[in-house]
Formats: sequence, C-alpha cells, structure tokens
Amino acid sequence: HSDPGYAEQGQLTVTYLTDAHRACAQQISHWMRDCGFDQIDIDAVGNVVGRYHPKNGADAAPYLLTGSHYDTVRNGGKYDGRLGVFVPMACVRELHQHGRRLSFGIELVAFAEEEGQRFKATFLASGALIGDFKTAWLDQQDADGITMRQAMQQAGLRVDDIAKIRRDPKRYLGFVEVHIEQGPVLNELNLPLGVVTSINGSVRYLGEVIGTASHAGTTPMDRRRDAVCAVAELALYMEQRAARDGDSVATIGLLQVPNGSINVVPGRCTFSLDLRAPNDSQRDALAADVLAELAAICERRGVRHVLEETMRAAAAPSAVAWQKRWEQAVQHLGVPLFCLPSGAGHDAMKLHEIMPQAMLFVRGENAGISHNPLESTTCDDMQLAVKAFGHVLEQLESEKR
Amino acid sequence: HSDPGYAEQGQLTVTYLTDAHRACAQQISHWMRDCGFDQIDIDAVGNVVGRYHPKNGADAAPYLLTGSHYDTVRNGGKYDGRLGVFVPMACVRELHQHGRRLSFGIELVAFAEEEGQRFKATFLASGALIGDFKTAWLDQQDADGITMRQAMQQAGLRVDDIAKIRRDPKRYLGFVEVHIEQGPVLNELNLPLGVVTSINGSVRYLGEVIGTASHAGTTPMDRRRDAVCAVAELALYMEQRAARDGDSVATIGLLQVPNGSINVVPGRCTFSLDLRAPNDSQRDALAADVLAELAAICERRGVRHVLEETMRAAAAPSAVAWQKRWEQAVQHLGVPLFCLPSGAGHDAMKLHEIMPQAMLFVRGENAGISHNPLESTTCDDMQLAVKAFGHVLEQLESEKR
Repeated sequence: HSDPGYAEQGQLTVTYLTDAHRACAQQISHWMRDCGFDQIDIDAVGNVVGRYHPKNGADAAPYLLTGSHYDTVRNGGKYDGRLGVFVPMACVRELHQHGRRLSFGIELVAFAEEEGQRFKATFLASGALIGDFKTAWLDQQDADGITMRQAMQQAGLRVDDIAKIRRDPKRYLGFVEVHIEQGPVLNELNLPLGVVTSINGSVRYLGEVIGTASHAGTTPMDRRRDAVCAVAELALYMEQRAARDGDSVATIGLLQVPNGSINVVPGRCTFSLDLRAPNDSQRDALAADVLAELAAICERRGVRHVLEETMRAAAAPSAVAWQKRWEQAVQHLGVPLFCLPSGAGHDAMKLHEIMPQAMLFVRGENAGISHNPLESTTCDDMQLAVKAFGHVLEQLESEKR
Repeated sequence: HSDPGYAEQGQLTVTYLTDAHRACAQQISHWMRDCGFDQIDIDAVGNVVGRYHPKNGADAAPYLLTGSHYDTVRNGGKYDGRLGVFVPMACVRELHQHGRRLSFGIELVAFAEEEGQRFKATFLASGALIGDFKTAWLDQQDADGITMRQAMQQAGLRVDDIAKIRRDPKRYLGFVEVHIEQGPVLNELNLPLGVVTSINGSVRYLGEVIGTASHAGTTPMDRRRDAVCAVAELALYMEQRAARDGDSVATIGLLQVPNGSINVVPGRCTFSLDLRAPNDSQRDALAADVLAELAAICERRGVRHVLEETMRAAAAPSAVAWQKRWEQAVQHLGVPLFCLPSGAGHDAMKLHEIMPQAMLFVRGENAGISHNPLESTTCDDMQLAVKAFGHVLEQLESEKR
C-alpha cells in the first residue's frame, strides 16, 4: 500500500512524528496548496496550517479558525479527525475555484496530535495553540525510549518556537470543527448530521476493592468479604445512575481479580471508572454519587477500597451563537435538526478555553464504530457536511460586523 | 530450618514426590513405627500405610480405614491433612502403650497427594485406593517438564503396582477422616469440633460474556452491550441465590476484561463459576438457576456468552451410622453437638465411592484461614479430636458384629 500513513500492511497507524505521520503532514500541505490556500506552514509542533486570506489582504480582517487532527490511534479509522480537515479544504477549494474571497479569512489547522498514543500528552497540538504546551512533556519517552524532544528534533521542528504558535483570540471569529460522531446515535436515528451542544466533561479513576480472600468451598455466603461482588454492585449502580441523567455516561472499562483462583473468594478486585456529562456540575454530581455509593457498598460489605483520580477534563458547552449557525445550516439543507452532546473529547475542547466554538457531527456507519478500521461514513453524508460548512461561511459573510 | 517439608525458608511446601515430600513420608513412617503400628509400607503411589492388627492376628477381622493427606499447597498450613494422620496415630500409640488390641484392625493411610499442586491429578492417592488411578496421568508433566512417571521412578515407586493397591471394601468397616475445618464456622460459634454431614458436591465453569466494545464517551447508556455489567448482574444473582439455600456457595473467583481500556465499554469479560451444595440435586438446582439467569441476563442485554464445564464432583453425604458415631463421641466429651457440611473436597470423597464414611472437623484459629501459614488450631482442640477418635474406636469395639 503506497498511501502515507499505512505503517503496517492494511492498517492505518499515524502516531505523532513517526515517518507515516510526517509523510501525512507533507501530503496535507500539498493538498492545501492544490485547494488554493494562500499560506501553508508546518508549525513548531507539526500542525499543518493553511490560511485563505480575506478579501482585503492577509491581515485585513479576523479569521475563522477550523480544523481537526490527522494523527490516529493504532489501526484506527480514516475519518476520525481527518474529516474535519478535508471538509473545510473542500469549501476553500470551492471559493478558490470561483475566485471568491470573503470578508474574513479562513485558517485551517490539521492538528498533529490528539490521540495521546505515542506520548501521554493528549491534545498537545491544540493545546499549543492556546499556550497550554507543558515543557515537561518534552522529556516524556515513547515505548522505544525516544523523548518527545528528540522526536521533534528528528522531524526538524523547532522546540523553541512552540510558545510562539499561541493564538491571539482577538484575531479570530471563533472555532468550528467537523468530526465523525464516533458513536451510534445518528446512525440509529437515521440522520446524517448532528449539532453538538457540548463536549462532555469527564473524570477518571483507578480503584481497587480489598476484601478477604478465602476458600470458595468453606466460606458461607454470609461470612464473605468478596471484592468482586462489591465492584459488581458498583457497576450496576453506575449504569442506572448515569442513565437517570439521560446524557451522562459511566463505564468500568478495566476490571480484574489480580492472582485470582477459581476456588478462592476474591480478596481483591481492581477497576477503572470513566464518568462523563455535558457540563461540569452534572459530571461532579454523578461522580459524587458514584463515589458515595462505592463507600456505602464497602461499608455495608465490610471491605475497603482505594481510589485515585487520574484525569479530569472540563466540559466545553458550545457557544450559543455558533451552535445556532450549525443548526441553521442543517435546517437549510432540509435535514432534520438533531442536537447531541459529544461524549468524546475533541480539539475544540482546547480552543474553547480562549474562543467561542461549536462542532458538527457526521453520522458513522457500522453503528458508529470508531478507533477501528470499520469506522466509516458515506459520500452523501460527507457532502452534506461540506454544504453545511459552506452555509456557515455564508452566514458569517452575511452577518454585519 | 531442619524439619522435612520446609522446602523454602520459613515456608511449608510439600508437593508430590519432591525431596521434601519424600523426606516427609520417611518421617511419618518412622513415627508410625514409634507409635506401635505393626506393619508400615510406602505404597506404589507414595502413600504411607500403617496397620495396627486386630487381637486375633493380621487378617482375623476387618479394619477401620482412616487417614488424610500429607502433601500441601505451596506455602501452606501445617494442619491441613496432617491432623488426620496424627490423631489416629495418637490413638494407636495409646492402645499400644496399654498393650491393647481391638476386635478390628486399624489401617492408617497418610495420603501422598490430595492438593493437585505439582500435577493436575487431584486426589490421586485416595483415588488409587478405589481403583480410580488414571494411567494417562503418568504422562502429565510438572512445570519443569518432568512427567509423573519419571517422578515416580526417581522416588523408587513401582508404577506397575498401582493397580494392586486398590482396596477390597469387604475387608473394611468404613472410613473416617479428621480434618481442620478450613473455614470460619466453628471458630465463630466457639465450638472445638463439628460433625460433617456431607462433603459438598461441586461444579465449575469457565465462561465469557461477549458484548460490543465501544467508545466509553460516545455510547449512550441505553445503547451499550457491556460485558462487565452482564457479569456483574450474574455475580449479585449468584450471591443471593446461593444464600437462599443457606448451605450452598457460589463464587466468581476469576474475572477479567481482556485487553480492556479505561475509555472503552468492555466488549468481553471472562469469569469462572464455582458452585457447591451438600447434595447433588441441590447443587444441580443451583447450577440450573445460575445458568438460566446468565442466559436471561444475556438475552435481555443483547450480549452472547460461552460457558465450559471444567469440573463436576458428586456430593458425598456421610453414612448415617458413621456420622452418628462421631456425634456420640462429641456429645460424650461434653462438647455441644454441631453438624455442618464440608465445603472443601477431602480424601473421604474418594473412599465414599466404595465404603461408608464420615468426617470430623476441628476448629481453625484465625477465622479458619487455610492454605496459608496462618492456618492454626489449638492443642486443646486437637486433644478433643484425639479423644473423639478414641471414643469412636470404643463404640466400634462395643458394637456387636
């Protein structure tokens, strides 16, 4: 397979600053050129940045910022992230082909890193745009012991320039991002597009219940301190508690009895918690209830637990005016309007911290499977996304500023 | 440490036909000699057999068969099995010291293998006595690639003679076994002795629930096919269903999400089931309910499951007359009578297949912990066990035959 990014036979694996990743960046920059972008750069963290200038010259007006990521998980899908690069690219090509300039510029960023696969520095690329690049990350090592700093130097990136790519929000209208849904909702509703109301806030924990290992044959049921049963209660509570909110989610993704035996009542059970909700207060209420229930279960069962918070991300509700632009675009296309929160994190979460943002989701085929080669969408749905993006451009153009 | 059996510093590990095991057998045979047994042999599978002849000569009358195992788990306790060797030994020493012979003989077997630690041939020693030694076991390899046949040859055992050690039940009155409880019941009730009503029947399964792995952020709670939640429901059902019987037990000892991630709804969850009850019909009803519930849970949740039965052992209810002898012995000592099933398997399960049997349990300290260096009992409790055993001998002597 000759396409850049196909690092292993038949698999799409484009992790940060690998050969496949650097080839990908080059390819995107060439395509940006072909589409008519005026100015194309690969910046200090590897972002590919294309600028399509406004009608009165490069710095005559603010820019609409848009984009998504071009890195992938291992053996990932080809729409995750990339769709949000190609949709604006198609719109700019259309403008360029008609020799048309708008009263604002368009800045498209193909973000170099969002998935946190090679280094544990998820969202480093969009983070760098808001001045949130942590220099400690440079000393992180990948699985082969190569530091991020070495990887950047090998890629010809200038580490010293990272601070300079921080964007000044005053020079931007806002940020929009198109992304494949990565979930089953639009597919089940048979809708091609969905407008994102919020990127969910999340909190993650790693935990362990410690009971008493004992003989599975000789320990009566009412004398057990069974770690698995305690975690089982928690799992079912989480399922019901999250469902009660409607749009919260709660997941035990990791679960194990360490050194368990078929004939031993489990004395230990390790687990993870992943809790998300469309706003921080809803997430915090969910987390408080789950943690209180865990404590109550352990108290009642006479077992102990330990719990460590490993991640906490604030929710990013869409800016009202920007969500409304996507809604009008969808309705203009004759597509039934449907709004939904984003359960997954996206680059828009980072830009959210410095400018208004809103996202558009495109239906995924195969029940919305993602991070998987089966991830897919249709040409029709992508064409609708391009039209919706174009309509947002027209709305911005017709608005008085 | 100079005691045989202490293979590692401070640990008691006596697995089948290791140096520690062979030294142990020699030591037991010497002690049997010291106690006054007339005839002592190490048989074809490594059992140490001591016979104390009846008053009219070696073959003048049937024998009472008794004993337990001298092998241990790794880093095990020193009472598990061995107590059932030393209690009859103390009684024979008492008879011998008084120059007394009974109208029946006493045959004490220190079983060479019960724990199934070195080879997967649990109960091979008591199995050999009932003609249940499977020759295929001889080709099993231990962790170092040594076959059982090689281990037997190195120990000087005669593989060809294994079939000859099968016992003729007509030459025995029955089988009794003294064993530490290996559970918390007697300790909690503050009772030194308990009479066993039945050795529980058991059935084991290895299973897996197969749902759909999906994004923990983007898959709404009502769209999930979460393998962990299905197994969690089963765990809590099992806990309640077994408790309803009072004396059944049900355990998920092994549990894992294979290749799970903190942010992925688990698509797979592997688990084990260990179900036990005092009789086979109660065990089978328990198993049928658990399996039906698993099927119903999977049906309701839209997930699949696979399940493999890996072990099934029949319950061994105590012979009424023999259980009664233990009860009378306990009551004669002024100890409150308490009867309980054995949750663990014992050598008596094997002898059960060819002759009447009943067991006596001795209280374990430390909440009955076993298979652990903390396993313990007291001199007072052991002395009561010796007296109870002696009383059974007196009952048999005074019964007309």
